[in-house]
This record gives sequence, C-alpha cells and structure tokens, in this order.
Amino acid sequence: MNFSSWASSIQQRTEVALELALPPSHISPTRLHDAMRYVVLGGGKRIRPLLCHAAGDLFKANQNSLDTAAIATELIHAYSLVHDDLPCMDNDVLRRGKPTCHIGFDEATALLAGDALQTLAFQVLSSRSLDVDLSHQVDMLNLLATASGSRGMAGGQALDIAATNQQLTIVELELMHIHKTGALIRAAVLLGAHCGKATPSELDQLSHFATRLGLLFQVVDDILDTESDTATLGKTAGKDAAQNKSTYVSLLGKNQAKELAVTMLHESHAALAPFGDHALRLHELADFIAERNF
Amino acid sequence: MNFSSWASSIQQRTEVALELALPPSHISPTRLHDAMRYVVLGGGKRIRPLLCHAAGDLFKANQNSLDTAAIATELIHAYSLVHDDLPCMDNDVLRRGKPTCHIGFDEATALLAGDALQTLAFQVLSSRSLDVDLSHQVDMLNLLATASGSRGMAGGQALDIAATNQQLTIVELELMHIHKTGALIRAAVLLGAHCGKATPSELDQLSHFATRLGLLFQVVDDILDTESDTATLGKTAGKDAAQNKSTYVSLLGKNQAKELAVTMLHESHAALAPFGDHALRLHELADFIAERNF
Repeated sequence: MNFSSWASSIQQRTEVALELALPPSHISPTRLHDAMRYVVLGGGKRIRPLLCHAAGDLFKANQNSLDTAAIATELIHAYSLVHDDLPCMDNDVLRRGKPTCHIGFDEATALLAGDALQTLAFQVLSSRSLDVDLSHQVDMLNLLATASGSRGMAGGQALDIAATNQQLTIVELELMHIHKTGALIRAAVLLGAHCGKATPSELDQLSHFATRLGLLFQVVDDILDTESDTATLGKTAGKDAAQNKSTYVSLLGKNQAKELAVTMLHESHAALAPFGDHALRLHELADFIAERNF
Repeated sequence: MNFSSWASSIQQRTEVALELALPPSHISPTRLHDAMRYVVLGGGKRIRPLLCHAAGDLFKANQNSLDTAAIATELIHAYSLVHDDLPCMDNDVLRRGKPTCHIGFDEATALLAGDALQTLAFQVLSSRSLDVDLSHQVDMLNLLATASGSRGMAGGQALDIAATNQQLTIVELELMHIHKTGALIRAAVLLGAHCGKATPSELDQLSHFATRLGLLFQVVDDILDTESDTATLGKTAGKDAAQNKSTYVSLLGKNQAKELAVTMLHESHAALAPFGDHALRLHELADFIAERNF
C-alpha cells in the first residue's frame, strides 16, 4: 500500500473511532455535544493519529488499541485549538475552513467544549477496551497528562502568550515549540509505541525522532503562514506577523528557515535508522510534514 | 478525635499534598504556575478531599492513596471554578475572599491555568505512587473523567448556562445540579472507597448517599446565596437572583427550600445506615454541609 492510501485508511478509521467516542448530538446537553462534534469531526490532517499508528505498526501493535490512543491525542489537540482560538487567546475566526467554535456557537460553549474534549481524552484512554497491560495503560495516561499540562502543551501556550510582541532568541523559540506542539507530537508517537510494547531504548530513540519531527512541523508551519493563503490553510494566513510573534521566518529569514526545515527532516530520518525498513511509514510521515501545503 | 480536629487534619494534609503536586512558582512558565498555585492553595473548604478521606476510612484505605485521590478531585474542582468565573461564564471578580484568577492575572492565564489544573488532576491520579491495584487505578481514572466531562460536571455547567433567564422545573433544576456539583461530589466519595477496596454493593450504597449529599450541598448553597453576605461567603452573594437563575429558593420559596434541606440531610444519613458507626465521619460531614454558613 502506498503512503497516500495508508494515510487515508488511518484517517478514515480515526474518524470512525472519534465518531463513536464523542457523545451523540441528541444527548443532553445537546448544544455542548454539538459543539464538541463540530470541532472534532470531518476535518484536520490527523497528524497525531497517523504518528500513533505508524509508531505502533513498528511493533505490530493491536489496531483497536492504536485507534484509542490515537483519538486520545487528537481530542487533546482539538481542545487546544478551541481554547487557542478564543478571544482572550489568538481571537481567531477560522479553523479547518469553517468558523471557529466560539463564532459558530458562543464563547461559553467553546470554553466548555474544550474542557470536555480534554476530559474525554482521558476517559477514552482509561477505558477497559484498550488492549494493553494495565501497567502500560497507567503509564500511557500519565504520559498523555504530562505532555498536555503546564510543563507540556499548556505551558507552551503560556510561553507563546508571554512572547507576543517580544523578540525571542532561537533557543527561546525552540523551547516554546518543544512544549506547545512538540510535547503532544512526541506523546502520539510514544503512545503508539507503548501499545506495541516497545522497549525503553526503542522509546528513547522514538522520542528523539519525535522531538526533531515536532520542530520540523513548526518550522514548516511558520513558512506556510507567510507563503500560503487562508483558503489553502483553512485558517487565517499571515497571523504570526499580524500578531507580531517571533517565528523561525521572522528570526532567520525565509531562506534560512527553509534550510532549517531540510536539516530537521534529515535529522528526523536519521533518528529512524535503527529501525531500518520497518520505519517506512514514520519516514514517509516526516516527508509529508515537510512537504505539506496546509 | 472530634469532627473539627479531624477535618482540620485532613485539610492540612490536603494542603501539603496539593503544594507538592503543583509545579513550583520558579519553574517556567512561571506566570502560569503562579496562577495555578494562586487558585488552589490556601483556601476552600476542601469538601471533596474530606469526603474522599471519610469514605476511604470506612474501608481502612491507605492515607497516602487517599491524599492522591483527594487532590485529584480538588484540582478538578479548582479548574471548574476558574473557568466558571471567566467573563464569558459567570463573570465574577471574587472567589474565596480574593480576586478571581482572571482579575488577579489575566483572562488568557486563567484559561490556561484551568486547563492545566484539569490535566494535573489526571497526571496525579495516574502516578505510580497510588497504592492500589492497577485495575482499580484505571477504573478510578475513568470514574474521575466520566464525572468531570460533558455528561458530568462540564455538562452541568452547560445546562446552567442554557438555563439563564429560564424558569426551570424542580426536576430540571435537580438534573442540572446532579451534573454540575453532584457528579464530582459522588466521584470524591467513590474514589475514596475505591482506595479501600469497597465491594460493588458498598459502592452502590455510597453512590446513593453521595447523590443525596450533592443535592443537600446545592440547596444549602442556594439558601446561603440569599441569606449570607459577600464577606462571609468569600464570593459574591445574591448572584443567582442578579443573574436571574432558577434556584431552589426561587422555585420553592425559602421556607420550603429549608425543609428540602432537612429532608436531604435525613436521606443522606439514612443511606449510611448499612455502615453503622463506621460511617461517623460521613454522617458528620453531611451535618457540616447542612449547617455551614459559607
């Protein structure tokens, strides 16, 4: 199966798993459930589920367990987007080509939908349907929580806010992104590997890969924000400059940012070397992240 | 030991456990960590930790495990207060006698502090320091998530918003409160009992107790909102009437609301009968909740 067919198949099974995990719209409180479904279903590149499955496939993990771990990371990602778009944060009106949650619904509903999506991630990952050892399951829950909290993703958001209108150094920018986007990308890879009983040294190697990949993701994001348009991105283009945020492009210039992306792609690939051909999907995913235009 | 000394000792160990679980202020992102500590430490009645310990003591549960379960419920409670106070929700300026988080810090920080406190609850409860069987631990994580999410506490918040400026029936009001405050109170009791290996029938009986207690808590809250003052409550008094919210007092009148509180107290006590004298602390906690003036 080529990469594109494989990615489609994972995106489809992720959609099905999310559809089943989300409370139905007709169940009270209906407006909240509508909002949760609105932001999660039918959109997104599903990068984290793809990473989770690709990492799990390295160790022949159970596909249903991978679905569960994958949607837990996607639910955390979705919650973070809803809250990040709120007026007190980025105040954005467009996400995945449609009005953001607080525009389509209202601020209070968006706040609660984000809250409840975070909770749902932990509810899903603590379900007995996950086919892993209980000790692994507890560790996976702790891993997801650590990656999402104040010293992971939420902490990265806080650093991002603090950095508005500030000129960061490259080191500070990298530190912010390692938290803001990198922590959850790393968690998606490691959760997939946990489903397949990876050894500690294999987890370490994948952690190294995921850290490089997370930075690659962000450099490309910064480049796309300046080069692409709102219709292609499905979110407001040119936002970083408008909000006077430090980015790889603003600090390095576009050419050097592109060179950095190439370096990060090589380092991501190099980190997969110990896994040989088995890591084909992860290798291809790094290419996909580097070459995407949205 | 009398009730008051016991409650003080639990409140003190809860404070210590929270202090240890919260990231230190000097660790980056410092403003976020400051905000998390600001809303959690040094205040609150710690009703949920008290319930968790009292329920666990029924089954001679390990005290350190009870501390962990107790602070997980308190962190969820604290996050819900921070988000509930935001301008898009209740827009309140006073909580536990000091400025609310978005007043003391800013809206974005309050949003992220609430988010990160929710995450921390799951991080704490998934730590390996909890001295219970792993299967119990996974079940406890699922219980806390279910109680906190869209069909528990967050769902109750959504029903509360939808009910603003609406005249609810008593049945609708009860349904809202069973979710908004009842679900987490019930989770606190059941998590304590889980730490002590309660049987399914004991859990059922405690669940019945906790449901009545949750409603008692809310009826008393509604009465206090009309009878007490802002200084005593530590939060804005008279808020329900000002926001035109349905309450037990607005629907039943004050006298009938007080009769309902007495009935709920009796029903709470009755639900403890199968445990005999062992349930003394839970019995006293129901009295405390009924008689409190803040």
